[in-house]
Amino acid sequence: MKFVSIIMGSKSDYEIMKNCADTFEQFNVKYELIISSAHRSPERTKEYVKDAEEKGAVAFIAAAGMAAHLAGALAATTTKPIIGVPMKGGAMDGMDAMLSTVQMPAGMPVATVALGRAGAINAAYLAMQILAISDKDLAIKLKEDRIVKAKAVESDSKDIEVIL
Amino acid sequence: MKFVSIIMGSKSDYEIMKNCADTFEQFNVKYELIISSAHRSPERTKEYVKDAEEKGAVAFIAAAGMAAHLAGALAATTTKPIIGVPMKGGAMDGMDAMLSTVQMPAGMPVATVALGRAGAINAAYLAMQILAISDKDLAIKLKEDRIVKAKAVESDSKDIEVIL
Amino acid sequence: MKFVSIIMGSKSDYEIMKNCADTFEQFNVKYELIISSAHRSPERTKEYVKDAEEKGAVAFIAAAGMAAHLAGALAATTTKPIIGVPMKGGAMDGMDAMLSTVQMPAGMPVATVALGRAGAINAAYLAMQILAISDKDLAIKLKEDRIVKAKAVESDSKDIEVIL
Amino acid sequence: MKFVSIIMGSKSDYEIMKNCADTFEQFNVKYELIISSAHRSPERTKEYVKDAEEKGAVAFIAAAGMAAHLAGALAATTTKPIIGVPMKGGAMDGMDAMLSTVQMPAGMPVATVALGRAGAINAAYLAMQILAISDKDLAIKLKEDRIVKAKAVESDSKDIEVIL
Amino acid sequence: MKFVSIIMGSKSDYEIMKNCADTFEQFNVKYELIISSAHRSPERTKEYVKDAEEKGAVAFIAAAGMAAHLAGALAATTTKPIIGVPMKGGAMDGMDAMLSTVQMPAGMPVATVALGRAGAINAAYLAMQILAISDKDLAIKLKEDRIVKAKAVESDSKDIEVIL
Amino acid sequence: MKFVSIIMGSKSDYEIMKNCADTFEQFNVKYELIISSAHRSPERTKEYVKDAEEKGAVAFIAAAGMAAHLAGALAATTTKPIIGVPMKGGAMDGMDAMLSTVQMPAGMPVATVALGRAGAINAAYLAMQILAISDKDLAIKLKEDRIVKAKAVESDSKDIEVIL
Amino acid sequence: MKFVSIIMGSKSDYEIMKNCADTFEQFNVKYELIISSAHRSPERTKEYVKDAEEKGAVAFIAAAGMAAHLAGALAATTTKPIIGVPMKGGAMDGMDAMLSTVQMPAGMPVATVALGRAGAINAAYLAMQILAISDKDLAIKLKEDRIVKAKAVESDSKDIEVIL
Amino acid sequence: MKFVSIIMGSKSDYEIMKNCADTFEQFNVKYELIISSAHRSPERTKEYVKDAEEKGAVAFIAAAGMAAHLAGALAATTTKPIIGVPMKGGAMDGMDAMLSTVQMPAGMPVATVALGRAGAINAAYLAMQILAISDKDLAIKLKEDRIVKAKAVESDSKDIEVIL
Repeated sequence: MKFVSIIMGSKSDYEIMKNCADTFEQFNVKYELIISSAHRSPERTKEYVKDAEEKGAVAFIAAAGMAAHLAGALAATTTKPIIGVPMKGGAMDGMDAMLSTVQMPAGMPVATVALGRAGAINAAYLAMQILAISDKDLAIKLKEDRIVKAKAVESDSKDIEVIL
Repeated sequence: MKFVSIIMGSKSDYEIMKNCADTFEQFNVKYELIISSAHRSPERTKEYVKDAEEKGAVAFIAAAGMAAHLAGALAATTTKPIIGVPMKGGAMDGMDAMLSTVQMPAGMPVATVALGRAGAINAAYLAMQILAISDKDLAIKLKEDRIVKAKAVESDSKDIEVIL
Repeated sequence: MKFVSIIMGSKSDYEIMKNCADTFEQFNVKYELIISSAHRSPERTKEYVKDAEEKGAVAFIAAAGMAAHLAGALAATTTKPIIGVPMKGGAMDGMDAMLSTVQMPAGMPVATVALGRAGAINAAYLAMQILAISDKDLAIKLKEDRIVKAKAVESDSKDIEVIL
Repeated sequence: MKFVSIIMGSKSDYEIMKNCADTFEQFNVKYELIISSAHRSPERTKEYVKDAEEKGAVAFIAAAGMAAHLAGALAATTTKPIIGVPMKGGAMDGMDAMLSTVQMPAGMPVATVALGRAGAINAAYLAMQILAISDKDLAIKLKEDRIVKAKAVESDSKDIEVIL
Repeated sequence: MKFVSIIMGSKSDYEIMKNCADTFEQFNVKYELIISSAHRSPERTKEYVKDAEEKGAVAFIAAAGMAAHLAGALAATTTKPIIGVPMKGGAMDGMDAMLSTVQMPAGMPVATVALGRAGAINAAYLAMQILAISDKDLAIKLKEDRIVKAKAVESDSKDIEVIL
Repeated sequence: MKFVSIIMGSKSDYEIMKNCADTFEQFNVKYELIISSAHRSPERTKEYVKDAEEKGAVAFIAAAGMAAHLAGALAATTTKPIIGVPMKGGAMDGMDAMLSTVQMPAGMPVATVALGRAGAINAAYLAMQILAISDKDLAIKLKEDRIVKAKAVESDSKDIEVIL
Repeated sequence: MKFVSIIMGSKSDYEIMKNCADTFEQFNVKYELIISSAHRSPERTKEYVKDAEEKGAVAFIAAAGMAAHLAGALAATTTKPIIGVPMKGGAMDGMDAMLSTVQMPAGMPVATVALGRAGAINAAYLAMQILAISDKDLAIKLKEDRIVKAKAVESDSKDIEVIL
Repeated sequence: MKFVSIIMGSKSDYEIMKNCADTFEQFNVKYELIISSAHRSPERTKEYVKDAEEKGAVAFIAAAGMAAHLAGALAATTTKPIIGVPMKGGAMDGMDAMLSTVQMPAGMPVATVALGRAGAINAAYLAMQILAISDKDLAIKLKEDRIVKAKAVESDSKDIEVIL
């Protein structure tokens, strides 16, 4: 069984990260989702990561705000790809979470995506792009999704466009 | 043949991105490396990506500075994972390249890593973590590398540590 | 036929960019307006730009938020003047869109205007200033508009001013 | 006679803005270049702009640092297109000059380009794109320049590229 | 007749700057208040400053937002002290107005105060401190105001304080 | 008698700082709480600190916004540990208060915690950690609190978690 | 005797603030200059301000870096005008000192000038503009200085200008 | 035995953190100093903290740069006070390390001090202030140090001061 793990640092992240889970549902991709904190439940976080990895987790998505250490803590525990989603709400419109997530030292990468909702969705897409390397059906679905998205742009445009 | 493609927006990025190539060499991972710009050579960039994907590229690493569009341009061309390395040197100590790389819209992720040299190395590590999902030998090497790094910390510490 | 093209990256930009279209309407300047994305519909964007240029587009206005690549993508496709309007809403109060738009590499300019609504209006004014170089009627209208604006300042002042 | 005016706020801007003049030289485009300050010589600035406009200036390039008001002062004096080049050296790596230049109120645009050297060159390119709307020879030169730039990318790449 | 002039760049600044006028009222200090823009009504601004100076203006308070040039434009017109109040609402939570106001070149100072409401009030206090140098009654009032403020702190504290 | 002093610069800080007092209540730790300003009531501030220190204050918590000098003013008056809580609401989402609090010169530390509510709570925790060095009961309570917090994470997770 | 007091927080500020003293020398304006810290020598600072005020100080110039509290500490001690010069060198290119100086609460203004050398000079000019309100000779000198500065711009321009 | 532990994330932090150790030496305060990384040697870090706590560590000083998680990782391991020193060198002049250190979630404080050298020294002073609560000799030394510092200010001033 191959799946992706979503870990949130706090239940307040759930509203945003539901968009991540929904994206996996939409593509029929298996995922787990838990709350576990780098600071308040470090042992639980570490044990979950080890268990999940044994069960088949191929990548981890970590969502956290403020001094967002969760993605980095996962990166220190496993060599699976870690995707970090910075949450807004701390200082400078989420810049604290962004810099705390992306500025990892050499050898310990966190694949950081956009702040907030766009990032939650992109974390799922990035995980699926990784899975699709060895899953042709998913690869095809991702290409079809691009065509759907391009058509949606055209359709959005139709409603308002002005052509001479 | 599976490999990783490194694309730089300008030859001035080479000094930093050599660290990325060197990391692949050190782990015996196959890579290609070219210069191609999102703005000055958009057709070349697009064609290279398509050709590389057919030849076996499983992930792309894009390094660019200032209004760093290269990673985003690759993301628009392929559904393979794109890793973005923001280069310093524009405004606000590289913040322009960082935000131009990471803040991608929903459905079009760029896996962004740290600014500059640490990011160049981390781009290689992240690509290898992705490859290692289906390459057990590489997975083992990555785990061994962690042990080496942990020992290097101890050894660095020995030189200066003060223990009562 | 000479006209200006307005391209928005997403339908969510329309509310702001309507101010740009309205400014052209007010001065009887011809314009086209479509939605097309640098990332979700890159081919459509490119084809539109080429078609519009042939039809008589003398300048392009690109509105986008977050890692705002649309203006840069147009700049890579045509040598007509590109005016970039950064949209708010991403990180740091729109600083992501601002830096992604303005910090273009040498030889590939984007004429960047203010964030949000003021920028939407200024994009239209800048395009009209460009058109007015070879359109004396429009040049006169722009000068008259300045007089109107100066009078509006006086009139606004009258309502509240305190003169000893 | 059609030409472009370059105005610098201080002689310390000359080293950077020489790149702007050199770009015009390279394309055989006529330009004037003076130093005049929005604050220290406001009358001279205003008179120069009026005289230059009468003589045939079709666009003005203003380079200034810190609380960079020069481009805005020109925008208040003429309805010709104003291109603003923010200079580095004040606060936050030039962010003071950038925001002072780009954040103009509705109806008074300044076409802002990148900080420093890239901006100096892009100001010239943007001015030439504006001139090229009614100058077919220059339009062709700008298209040829793109081909040259694309080839330079390929040639830069040749020196270092790694192809499997 | 000695008085202070308050100039706002736009009527939208009035709500905040009313706090400045109210502070003068409270201390019975004479002031004028008008709207005049550095960009939309530069001639009116200049003429007003000259007339006001002749009539007895000893200092000018300029309130503006975004690329806030108004204070700088006054500084270029008179050698009387200019007090700049940056308005919020542009980019980075008013940082654009702050940097556009404070970062003046050598020899052309603007006495910059805090963003928004606190700044509006402080502009009045600073002007009164300047007037008080040669107005003993006002100097005494300013000292008494400090005692009132210190007592207000004590009184605020009383409502909530916890003392063991 | 050992206790902690909470000093707020303004009554508007009370809503946030109540979380600090509540945290002490929850752990049965003695505290005092007053309003006193570094600028509006400097003498009162200084005298309170001296009196409190004599009465048994072991640490001071200072909450202030904008150019937040209160913590620094306390640091200049006593050699007891000073904990600074930056308040939001000034410029750049509280960055003004953050930098004014943390960037103290060598030899005059302020122990700075997070912006706003999280910081108010953390100031209490930090003070209790300091008290707990010589108070075993409190030390035990702090360890138990960690277990409670870790369990709360698990319980939060239960409500929403998805486990394969 | 009327004079201006310059107070620096640290001897490392002297190199920059010498430009302030030199400006006073150039205009034959009396000044005092001392080092005194808001944090390391708060009593000395307070006593000096009181003594200086009695001796005839009409305004105070405070130069400090990092969490720059010196100007605010003076503002809390006297109702004379306080001019704050933020020094570079802490965080974000001096933004810490800038925000710590300018963001004063209502009723306690600090007249803030530019960062570093330009600010050091502008502090002197601002103080002289304040003195000149009741010193006609100085007022004339300040006007003549403007003419000299305007001529210097013309002369600088002559060396490099390109006129068609 | 009571002592303070200094932990650095990387040997590159030693040059700055030597100032911390030197400050302890100067006051004859016992300390340990090691290198251990939150990411590269998480187990070693955790074990060291537990051992040090048992041996008598009363506070921990953590120095790290970039996405500085070390202080937070210590905070998750012990309830002793954690002092965080952000190192410069990552992005935005050390703002990444600053925000990653200070913006800790409620209940998990890190006592953050200034960036770089001033912070390294202040970390030692803060730790000594904590120790001094129950160490009267150290408390006296800290008070004497203040007198020395105040005298040093006077002496620095003597070299350059200008008194009328």
